[in-house]
Amino acid sequence: MGANWKITLSYDGADYHGWQVQPGLVTIQGTLAQGIERITGETVLPQGSGRTDAGVHALAQVASFSLAAPIPPENLQRALNRTLPSAIRILSAETVPPEFHARHSARSKWYEYRIFRGELCPPWTARYAYALHWPLHMDALHAAAEVFLGEHDFSSFAAGDPDASERAAQESPENGNVNPVREGNVREIYASSWSLHGDMLLYRVHGNGFLHHMVRNLVGTMLDAGRGQLRPGDLPGILAARDRSAAGPTAPARGLFLMRVIY
Amino acid sequence: MGANWKITLSYDGADYHGWQVQPGLVTIQGTLAQGIERITGETVLPQGSGRTDAGVHALAQVASFSLAAPIPPENLQRALNRTLPSAIRILSAETVPPEFHARHSARSKWYEYRIFRGELCPPWTARYAYALHWPLHMDALHAAAEVFLGEHDFSSFAAGDPDASERAAQESPENGNVNPVREGNVREIYASSWSLHGDMLLYRVHGNGFLHHMVRNLVGTMLDAGRGQLRPGDLPGILAARDRSAAGPTAPARGLFLMRVIY
Repeated sequence: MGANWKITLSYDGADYHGWQVQPGLVTIQGTLAQGIERITGETVLPQGSGRTDAGVHALAQVASFSLAAPIPPENLQRALNRTLPSAIRILSAETVPPEFHARHSARSKWYEYRIFRGELCPPWTARYAYALHWPLHMDALHAAAEVFLGEHDFSSFAAGDPDASERAAQESPENGNVNPVREGNVREIYASSWSLHGDMLLYRVHGNGFLHHMVRNLVGTMLDAGRGQLRPGDLPGILAARDRSAAGPTAPARGLFLMRVIY
Repeated sequence: MGANWKITLSYDGADYHGWQVQPGLVTIQGTLAQGIERITGETVLPQGSGRTDAGVHALAQVASFSLAAPIPPENLQRALNRTLPSAIRILSAETVPPEFHARHSARSKWYEYRIFRGELCPPWTARYAYALHWPLHMDALHAAAEVFLGEHDFSSFAAGDPDASERAAQESPENGNVNPVREGNVREIYASSWSLHGDMLLYRVHGNGFLHHMVRNLVGTMLDAGRGQLRPGDLPGILAARDRSAAGPTAPARGLFLMRVIY
């Protein structure tokens, strides 16, 4: 009897060309598929809860796939961790009902963006944070983060590349996404806040979905507010513009972590 | 007026072919030399306190070199940190008397070897630790570490490669090393101990000099004692054999950090 599988995994994305399989490039999805094939002999393409870009990390990404052969969940987890490079770790593996799909079934996600504020960013931190020395006004960051709470059209914060519309289409109801809120570029943000932990400044955001580059564009724009290049009061207008060129730059991938996917 | 310089630097050695310049390979020494040349226009080869192998990290390596052009120390530090990749950070830069030489003037060094003992080694830890799941007898590790204290001929723990004798020659008095203790393969160890910090098992060692691969060979051999493959009581005999084949395996580079060089 075959089964539908759900795995939760951590990865260091620094040396990978993102989640999605691409010809000739080393990706998380491709490496995972190779590992599964090596263990089971079955060729599957694990579906992630969403794609992460090149250099983006995951504390707990979720992927689903079907396997024909039965295998005890602990064995699959242990065998994958033995086979995969140490940059990818399987935190758990379990069988789930056939209707579970890592992307379509996802209700919400948490992301975290890490900014190192100390004088000198240690090499072992630099892979996992954006080292930023400019003075930042915390009040402006807090005010900016609050603007994004609730339901908004986030077109101004969606990547302007062709990939973005493809992603939007993939998330549309016609393609199996039953959550009616995620039409077009409208998303709902449940939590959005900055906090300082020693030398590490963290932005944590929880929402029912995220457009391509959305968290990095939110962060880049809020940092502009933190530096005084724009005022938090400008942000509602930037949202309303529904135009990528209205918002600030894309923050570097290295600071971004997919923290949790909620089903 | 030119000056003799001493810099202290951290690096993540995972993506480098060790400290020493090698044709066609990316090394710490070579990358540092390129950075200095880019800033000052001067071609120098910074001399490290010692070489670190491919994959070995440094919390505080020390290097020395001479520059003809005067430059304020803070400017050199800042400019190097702007030029160098984030995997190499200059912690300090200072001018020193002309007789200072990072290797010849070094009196002693601290190394640390990191072993991850948890169930699943997170990707961001795996680059900087050896993940080891075997049961280990702490009593055996403690007893083994004590055996190395004091002055010994560490030939059994020196790499068996041609590089090793070259290194020994470089450290010999004929080549400017004025410390008479460091002849041949005799070294004095001042501190050698294991300690457990949460999931991280650390071996810390302080000595007046270390042969090629010596710390990794000490660790690999002590781990054999910890696993019960040999008894701590076997270690004096292994030292006395002065034969690499008498000792245990070389522990992986990723767990090793050069922590401090004392002058």
